[in-house]
Amino acid sequence: MSAIDDLTGELARLPGIGRKTALRLAFHLLKAPSDDAQRLARAIVAVRERVRPCEVCGNLTEVTPCAICTSTRRDGTTVCVVEEASDIMAIERTGEYRGMYHVLGGRLSPLDGVGPSELNVEPLVRRVGGGVVQEVVLATNPSVEGEATAMYLRKLIGPLGVRVTRIARGLPVGGDLEYADGVTIAEALTHRREM
Amino acid sequence: MSAIDDLTGELARLPGIGRKTALRLAFHLLKAPSDDAQRLARAIVAVRERVRPCEVCGNLTEVTPCAICTSTRRDGTTVCVVEEASDIMAIERTGEYRGMYHVLGGRLSPLDGVGPSELNVEPLVRRVGGGVVQEVVLATNPSVEGEATAMYLRKLIGPLGVRVTRIARGLPVGGDLEYADGVTIAEALTHRREM
Repeated sequence: MSAIDDLTGELARLPGIGRKTALRLAFHLLKAPSDDAQRLARAIVAVRERVRPCEVCGNLTEVTPCAICTSTRRDGTTVCVVEEASDIMAIERTGEYRGMYHVLGGRLSPLDGVGPSELNVEPLVRRVGGGVVQEVVLATNPSVEGEATAMYLRKLIGPLGVRVTRIARGLPVGGDLEYADGVTIAEALTHRREM
Repeated sequence: MSAIDDLTGELARLPGIGRKTALRLAFHLLKAPSDDAQRLARAIVAVRERVRPCEVCGNLTEVTPCAICTSTRRDGTTVCVVEEASDIMAIERTGEYRGMYHVLGGRLSPLDGVGPSELNVEPLVRRVGGGVVQEVVLATNPSVEGEATAMYLRKLIGPLGVRVTRIARGLPVGGDLEYADGVTIAEALTHRREM
């Protein structure tokens, strides 16, 4: 197999990258300054070598515990539970949340063989039971599996005597009623608020 | 800068990859089996080390002259002129063309400072003047600059006494009159054929 075919094949394994895009990227990497290609290759290797999960929350970090877990300016009494470390970045970008996180590493999905023991659930229970945490915000995705995971965690954590909340569902800001799906509109109506 | 930010930045430099996609790819590379990431990094380095332009036609190849130039089953009397080596792959996929190629390495673009001396024009003239070539198919893109490049080459190559043709313009197969631009429809009408 040629080096171009080989690179195209590897690029096409990336999520959302089809055969044509992979080919375009491969040619770009061939034509780009040599430094650019080298830097990308090195960055891929470096990220694998330097980044690992935080021992406390599961966030991806180069120093463990991570900067969020060791921060003295954050609220240690609130833990936001997310499916993936990438969700933390999305929430941090909003600047609206100043508590801690806990990464499950996925969501319950019996069809894919993902049960509670495959997820980072036990450390969460231990953490919540430690006496410091007062609220657990369940921020798993608003999908069927994300909801099921949130339900499961609520049942598990509820008896520990902490507040368990779920992120709100409704119409996305900038969204359009006309294009929103029925379930979302129904949720938005049910959870309407006083103005 | 963190290794994740670094990798995200490098990925975002690729064409058509925005910040969000870059982040998604970076997280994928972090979560993927270690082999996958290593193979991609190696493939990027390998493609730069092993692939270079064919000394005859400018096609990207690991052996020069390339497999097309050295093939005995292809028609050496016809040369198809394309802007980029990636265009060769697109034409080869059709299986409709059995001649040779010549890669210009771009198109005339005075605004970007690309004149004839920046392109692989002189070797083309030498090749066409060598006595073997009987037809030059100008397959630069049907864009303003691609057309200008084709016009320039026709004037340059015409006096050499070979047939100079241009790939047809018209409605793309599977296209829709309603969504086609006016210029394309006009071209399709002008170059209508007997059925």
